[in-house]
Amino acid sequence: MTVFTKTPDQTFFDKHPYAQTPEPPYYAVIFSNQNSGLDPDDYGVTATAMEELAATQDGYLGIESTRNSEGYAITVSYWRDLDAIKNWKQNVDHTVARNKGRDTWYQSYYLRVAKVEKAYCFEQD
Amino acid sequence: MTVFTKTPDQTFFDKHPYAQTPEPPYYAVIFSNQNSGLDPDDYGVTATAMEELAATQDGYLGIESTRNSEGYAITVSYWRDLDAIKNWKQNVDHTVARNKGRDTWYQSYYLRVAKVEKAYCFEQD
Repeated sequence: MTVFTKTPDQTFFDKHPYAQTPEPPYYAVIFSNQNSGLDPDDYGVTATAMEELAATQDGYLGIESTRNSEGYAITVSYWRDLDAIKNWKQNVDHTVARNKGRDTWYQSYYLRVAKVEKAYCFEQD
Repeated sequence: MTVFTKTPDQTFFDKHPYAQTPEPPYYAVIFSNQNSGLDPDDYGVTATAMEELAATQDGYLGIESTRNSEGYAITVSYWRDLDAIKNWKQNVDHTVARNKGRDTWYQSYYLRVAKVEKAYCFEQD
């Protein structure tokens, strides 16, 4: 058993599906959502494009995302600070995608902006 | 289209699968994890028992959780403050389950404690 209580090394991130975040503090945007199931192909293309675009933004630290078979998903994106989140929110392409999300893809969502104060990680030997 | 920018009413929570959190500030524990696939029945029983036990703890606000078909999950639990999180961490039954999780059920995890500063939600009409 290995328990990291500080920032893990590159090997950890190479092996495991987590955002490569630095030592806290930094910010998390917790986006819980229920997919409507409408227009899934277009949703998939846009979601991938948005993840790629987000990754180019100043202050972007990484993303973790999972969705179950009923279309309930949690996506957490990580950012250096509130300004980085604000800039991403105001990005034009992101705004267009977000409006399409409200019009079509999401039945509902809950979005929370939170300041990460502590972090721990673990891997089996 | 309906966009809530403050605390939504009971009807919203009755209809949608989100933790019924109050207006910020409060805390989130973001637990991203990869299941090992070992002993899944026992894992399911224990996970349900832990969710039920957490719900009885002082300062517990709610939980959101989803897992994909590859066993990658994000569970976010919400708490009033850091003391409530600390008390839950020190709960004896929770400690036993956590140790079993490290020994058996989790291949890896990343846990972050974050202070929620802002929240927004949305539902289709």
